[in-house]
Amino acid sequence: MGVFCCGLITGHAQEALRVNQDRLQGTLETLATYGKDASGQPNRVAFSDGDIQGRAYVAGLMKQAGLQVRTDAAGNLIGTRPGTVAGLKPLGLGSHIDMVPHGGNYDGCVGSLAAIEVARVLQENQVQTRHPLEFIIFSNEEGGVMGSRAMAGALKPEALQVVNSTGYSMGQGIQRLGGDTTRLQEAIRPKGSFAAFLELHIEQGGILDREGEDIGVVEGIVGLRWWDVTVKGMANHAGTTPMGLRQDALLAAARFIQAVNEEAKGMDGKQVATVGRIAAYPGAPNVIPGEVVLSLEIRDLSDAVIDALYERILERASAITQDSGTTFAFEALDTTGKPALTDPRIQQTIQEAADALGLSRRNMQSGAGHDAQDMALIAPVGMIFVPSNGGISHSPEEYTSREDMAHGADVLLHTLLLLDQSWD
Amino acid sequence: MGVFCCGLITGHAQEALRVNQDRLQGTLETLATYGKDASGQPNRVAFSDGDIQGRAYVAGLMKQAGLQVRTDAAGNLIGTRPGTVAGLKPLGLGSHIDMVPHGGNYDGCVGSLAAIEVARVLQENQVQTRHPLEFIIFSNEEGGVMGSRAMAGALKPEALQVVNSTGYSMGQGIQRLGGDTTRLQEAIRPKGSFAAFLELHIEQGGILDREGEDIGVVEGIVGLRWWDVTVKGMANHAGTTPMGLRQDALLAAARFIQAVNEEAKGMDGKQVATVGRIAAYPGAPNVIPGEVVLSLEIRDLSDAVIDALYERILERASAITQDSGTTFAFEALDTTGKPALTDPRIQQTIQEAADALGLSRRNMQSGAGHDAQDMALIAPVGMIFVPSNGGISHSPEEYTSREDMAHGADVLLHTLLLLDQSWD
Repeated sequence: MGVFCCGLITGHAQEALRVNQDRLQGTLETLATYGKDASGQPNRVAFSDGDIQGRAYVAGLMKQAGLQVRTDAAGNLIGTRPGTVAGLKPLGLGSHIDMVPHGGNYDGCVGSLAAIEVARVLQENQVQTRHPLEFIIFSNEEGGVMGSRAMAGALKPEALQVVNSTGYSMGQGIQRLGGDTTRLQEAIRPKGSFAAFLELHIEQGGILDREGEDIGVVEGIVGLRWWDVTVKGMANHAGTTPMGLRQDALLAAARFIQAVNEEAKGMDGKQVATVGRIAAYPGAPNVIPGEVVLSLEIRDLSDAVIDALYERILERASAITQDSGTTFAFEALDTTGKPALTDPRIQQTIQEAADALGLSRRNMQSGAGHDAQDMALIAPVGMIFVPSNGGISHSPEEYTSREDMAHGADVLLHTLLLLDQSWD
Repeated sequence: MGVFCCGLITGHAQEALRVNQDRLQGTLETLATYGKDASGQPNRVAFSDGDIQGRAYVAGLMKQAGLQVRTDAAGNLIGTRPGTVAGLKPLGLGSHIDMVPHGGNYDGCVGSLAAIEVARVLQENQVQTRHPLEFIIFSNEEGGVMGSRAMAGALKPEALQVVNSTGYSMGQGIQRLGGDTTRLQEAIRPKGSFAAFLELHIEQGGILDREGEDIGVVEGIVGLRWWDVTVKGMANHAGTTPMGLRQDALLAAARFIQAVNEEAKGMDGKQVATVGRIAAYPGAPNVIPGEVVLSLEIRDLSDAVIDALYERILERASAITQDSGTTFAFEALDTTGKPALTDPRIQQTIQEAADALGLSRRNMQSGAGHDAQDMALIAPVGMIFVPSNGGISHSPEEYTSREDMAHGADVLLHTLLLLDQSWD
């Protein structure tokens, strides 16, 4: 009976704790019944009726797990659990349950339901933590990490006017979720409010799946910058203008798209650069395009690497103008995200937890944005990835096996317990 | 008085005939007053009220020139003048006065009004030709060379359903112009109906203007073929998909666009190939494009050259699929035009006329389609080009100087007279 004290388990007995794989799978499947489109495909966009129903279901799970549940002014759903040591800051964990239009049932949901499963395991085993715990389901992650950004005090007032596919603006949506746009200040948690924040998430890439590894230890969430690139040449008759006399904006754009790819590949590191959108004007088969507008996106963990890659791309554009009779103009867009590094000590703790559980793991970066990115503004954060089948994401085809989800949830549980024991 | 006989001038006196430059310029300016849009820009699209008014003005000019005027069943406006030798087939000349939406006042109009100016000069100088003459203003050239195609017996019945920017179908439009869709057969002129057909036109390219030459002797009108090209890759998250694992349809399309340009330039000759339209799906800055659809157009005077260039482009596409994880599919579209060669004897006659007038000239091809292209199905044709300022065409900025127009009209007049005297 030595490891038991007062009805609580401690020490070595805690190491044996595991999440309930079937229960986690079950809650995931039940949540998936809320928020489908007319054809039965997942469509639980933030502020939709399905989102509100799904949140009600999750709030019920939190209460079953013994948590005190509230909704903050930004619509974040928060379940709290007291700690045993007075004065310690809370440890936070969670994710989101809203999805992109016609998205999948794993992005955000796995991390949200795994956090609640952790609460259930703690409750069942009467584990008391030193730190108070906060289980957080952030509001409207897919529409601009709204809830976590509000919590970090970084949500711009003009964002409240942005309307998503439900037809509701963020401001209207916050009211629908039970928040209060007149009291958004109260949702802000100052820097240092949390001892740490942990998020489990599906990888949304194909690396873990392809390499057959269980756990991704996230080193950071890449920053991203967007530009609109306008290429101007001279529109002209495709029949009467000889090849040598053309100022073809689309041909110059084609060379640019190749140059972007070559430069992104040509540097050491994991930086990515993408041209995803293109329009050519006037856009007729028998007219040489006089103008092309395309998007440029660069992502990396380091702002300096983004700068360096952008400079190389600018040089290539300049070289293309020399012999093509075209001009290039770059307009930086406001849609940026700063790189967010995770806390190295938490990375180390995640590695220890995975190793103790006998799970394979690799360090990696997150190419997608997450709530943890904004939480990093106010707290040390850690992120745990589990495999995404085929790297598919933001699609009804998203899939992570119940075993992989449980592995991630076990790592989340034990990282939390290790931090609780070793951090103040 | 030796050169005069019976009130007619002949021989050397005919060589001194010149068109009236100011009168030609005046009729061009008056015609330009018909068919403007709300902002005063030229917009005389076929079947519009402006087109009907412009045709009425031109019919009046024909009558002033002593021509017998009628409208055929396809809406072609035809002015005839008798010849002196029984049994000779008519010599035809003319062009069109309709324009593309927001087009210019020179494309088609210069050739139409120059032909009528020729009739005026013949009338004023009491020149009688051996052949009967037909001055033809073809209907709806810009909407698919409708009138000339109908005259050649090549207008497909389904074309009558095609609606242009006026909202009228070709069938409705023919009725509006005074034609009769129930009697289109009567508009057909069998092969061999004309001794020859001549068309004067602005170049619509920049070659004569740049080289400072007066007259283009057209060797032929290029054929054109269109394809829709679909590139398929794999849409994926632009943040989580490493550069090396992408199947980027837009990157493959960019390589293809360059390959099209390289192959068109890499062959000897004047062939041109153009990608003018492109769409990438899903088309978001943060998603790697999974599908691209683009247009491919190839033009040349020779079908065999078009075939050969297309084969080379297919090979390049095939090479791109090898290392990009993408596929290419080519769909040939119905929008084709066969190459039309002009008659070498008429080319020679145009050269002689230009030389006798002291005008500089060069042989060239027409990269744009013209009524002469379909008339070549039923008659030996010749085409005369005059300079387009800056090569601009299908735009309100179109411009040809009054001197250049008069030079072209003089060449048209003397080519007609030379053919009349030497041909049977």
